Amino acid sequence: MDVARLVELNAAYARAIDNEKYEDWPGFFLESCLYKLTTAENMAKGLEAGLIYADSRAMLQDRISALRKANIYERQRYRHIVGLPTVLARTDNTVEVETPFLIVRIMRDGATNVFATGCYRDKVRGNGDGTLHFAERIVICDSSRFDTLVAIPF
Amino acid sequence: MDVARLVELNAAYARAIDNEKYEDWPGFFLESCLYKLTTAENMAKGLEAGLIYADSRAMLQDRISALRKANIYERQRYRHIVGLPTVLARTDNTVEVETPFLIVRIMRDGATNVFATGCYRDKVRGNGDGTLHFAERIVICDSSRFDTLVAIPF
Amino acid sequence: MDVARLVELNAAYARAIDNEKYEDWPGFFLESCLYKLTTAENMAKGLEAGLIYADSRAMLQDRISALRKANIYERQRYRHIVGLPTVLARTDNTVEVETPFLIVRIMRDGATNVFATGCYRDKVRGNGDGTLHFAERIVICDSSRFDTLVAIPF
Repeated sequence: MDVARLVELNAAYARAIDNEKYEDWPGFFLESCLYKLTTAENMAKGLEAGLIYADSRAMLQDRISALRKANIYERQRYRHIVGLPTVLARTDNTVEVETPFLIVRIMRDGATNVFATGCYRDKVRGNGDGTLHFAERIVICDSSRFDTLVAIPF
Repeated sequence: MDVARLVELNAAYARAIDNEKYEDWPGFFLESCLYKLTTAENMAKGLEAGLIYADSRAMLQDRISALRKANIYERQRYRHIVGLPTVLARTDNTVEVETPFLIVRIMRDGATNVFATGCYRDKVRGNGDGTLHFAERIVICDSSRFDTLVAIPF
Repeated sequence: MDVARLVELNAAYARAIDNEKYEDWPGFFLESCLYKLTTAENMAKGLEAGLIYADSRAMLQDRISALRKANIYERQRYRHIVGLPTVLARTDNTVEVETPFLIVRIMRDGATNVFATGCYRDKVRGNGDGTLHFAERIVICDSSRFDTLVAIPF
């Protein structure tokens, strides 16, 4: 699993979200997985709990259903700029990797601002046919204050 | 034509613009090409017309001449941060690829803001000697509202 | 020294700074090196002097000691998004390369803004065992106005 493959995975993940193909999002994870959204401050304090937590693909699908019903996402667009991955560890078929991100939010009136920055701390697993999935994606946001609506996938 | 080559092409394209070497810009395109600037909203509505449209390298050169005469660009600087490409399709010597971008504008008084975000939807063609050119570059901006001056190349 | 290695170097460099492992920063440079922070305007005017200048790893270490004593950095976090490198020249074991960057600053109250943009103009040297170091890193900021605190490494 070389870096080019990780880059491809991150590009496809960001593209699905920015193109609002939210239903594709759970498919980037293993059936049994960990998705957590937390803050750098919480991580520094050793606080385990995240703002958002899911440990299965089904839970991720539930989030998307709720998001679609709320319809709130239609008021704005998002744009991910994903940086370059740093590989932290490798085992047989799993890679631990950290990747910075920047998410820009574009409001309907055109106002365009930095919505969030942070890094993904991932465990990426390859299966037999070469497909990559997230066994874990921990989203560590730099800011501890959030727009109350943290509904879209990061 | 591997992803590394596409990355190189995007880096050189952005660098030419950010270094204000606008005269180099048309050279990234084939003689007969398509350059269009449009918005995600227009795309979603199926509106074909773009805010800016050119179908030859000569038209791109004309844009630069006009820009140089107007001299407006001197009041600010731009910085492109180009994300990771996702290859959508491949044929013989052409690759269809989508790549996110972020453009920051730096005003003379130092104010630095996100100017535009969006994605490039490209058809990139390789010729015999391995050089890559854009057969098509459709710039799809996330925001539908623009600073009236959309003069620099995106 | 292929582009993938340069990308790796830049990712590790940015990660060290954003994770506030400032003591790791001098280690990215050769013992005898050049680190300069300047502006695009100064470069255009041919002004050699930079806002910050260091020509040895020891000087870089001094900067970090001063930064740690001042403790000012604790009030905010930074996030680098490093773009794609363009190789400008290659000699035996040195590569000249230009790479755009964007630095976002996250204040303690959550305010998140573009802090700086620009490009790195680097001379990267590989030694016998394949490790890469900066022989030169000239940080050229797009904006000529700075927050008076330009203390963290760029």
